[in-house]
Amino acid sequence: MPSEDNSFKQIKIQTIGIIRTPFLEASGTPIQAAYGKDIEGRVLLNEAYAAALDDIEGFERLWLIYWMDRVGQFKPRVVPYRDTREHGLFATRSPSRPNPIGMSVVCLLRREGSVLHIAGIDILDGTPLLDIKPYIPEFDAHPVSKAGWLDIPGVDRRKADNRFHEPVPGRKNID
Amino acid sequence: MPSEDNSFKQIKIQTIGIIRTPFLEASGTPIQAAYGKDIEGRVLLNEAYAAALDDIEGFERLWLIYWMDRVGQFKPRVVPYRDTREHGLFATRSPSRPNPIGMSVVCLLRREGSVLHIAGIDILDGTPLLDIKPYIPEFDAHPVSKAGWLDIPGVDRRKADNRFHEPVPGRKNID
Repeated sequence: MPSEDNSFKQIKIQTIGIIRTPFLEASGTPIQAAYGKDIEGRVLLNEAYAAALDDIEGFERLWLIYWMDRVGQFKPRVVPYRDTREHGLFATRSPSRPNPIGMSVVCLLRREGSVLHIAGIDILDGTPLLDIKPYIPEFDAHPVSKAGWLDIPGVDRRKADNRFHEPVPGRKNID
Repeated sequence: MPSEDNSFKQIKIQTIGIIRTPFLEASGTPIQAAYGKDIEGRVLLNEAYAAALDDIEGFERLWLIYWMDRVGQFKPRVVPYRDTREHGLFATRSPSRPNPIGMSVVCLLRREGSVLHIAGIDILDGTPLLDIKPYIPEFDAHPVSKAGWLDIPGVDRRKADNRFHEPVPGRKNID
C-alpha cells in the first residue's frame, strides 16, 4: 500500500455491537447469507443505540454491515470460492478486501430490547457490527442484472474453506 | 456516546478512492440511487488498486460502499425523507448514522483503467470510497420483502433536503 499516496485518508469508525453466530471458523461457514437460511443468530447492539431500533420489527429483512476482523491480507487478484479461475478482487465478494467491510441480508425474527434475533447467516461468531439498515426492495432488489463470471460460476460451492482466513487454533465449527 | 462502554472498539479504515458526481450539496440530491437513474458520475479508484478491477466489466450493477463525510450528528430517532413521523434510525436509510457508511447500487457504464463510469447516483461529489462489490441478484435481490413503514410511506419524496446535512456555503446544485 503506497502510504506516500496522499489520496489515502484514514477514517475512524466505532463498532456498535457484535454478531453472535454458530460459526467459529471460516471453513464450513456459508459463503453467503442466502446459503445459510436455517442458521439462527443474534445481533447484540450496544445499549446506547437501543432506541434507534424502534419500528424495525416491520421489516422482514435487514442489511448487517460489519467488519470482517479475521480475514487475511488483501490481494488484487483472487480465486473466489465459486470459481477455479482468478478474478480482480472487486469483481468478487471475497472477504479479503482493502477494507474488509461485509454486508449480509438477514431475516429478522424478532427484537428484544437491544437484541435482534436473526436467521440466514454467513458471518463468523463475534464479528463487530458497524451498521444496520432496513432491506427495501424498491432500492435494493434488481432481480435481473448481469453478474459477469458468476452467471456461469466454475464451482457450485456454498460453504467457505480457509483460503481467505488464518485458521483459528482451537476453534472449529460443529457439524 | 458513552465512551466508558468498553464494548465500543475503534477501527481504522482507509479510503480507496473518491466518487465524482454532479451533486455539491444534499438539498436536491436523489435520496436513493433508484431515483437518480439518468445521473452519471465517476469512481476514481486509487491507482494502487487498479488490478483489482479486472473482470468487473461483466457486471451490470455494482455496490459502492462509501463514507458520508458531510452528514450531521447521529440521533436515535429521526423523521426520514419519506415520512412525516419519527422512526428509529436503524429502521430508516437516513444518512446520519453512528457510522455514516453509505451503500448504493449503481449501473456500470464502462471502465477506463482505475476509473469507473457509472449511472444512477445519489451520492455527494467528492465522497470517499471504502469498497466496491459486484451486485449479484442471487445474493442481493429479494423483490418480495416486507418493508415496514416504507410499504406505505407518508411522503413520496425523491430528492433530499438539508435536514441531515450542514449546508455548505458556496456549494449549490445546478438544476
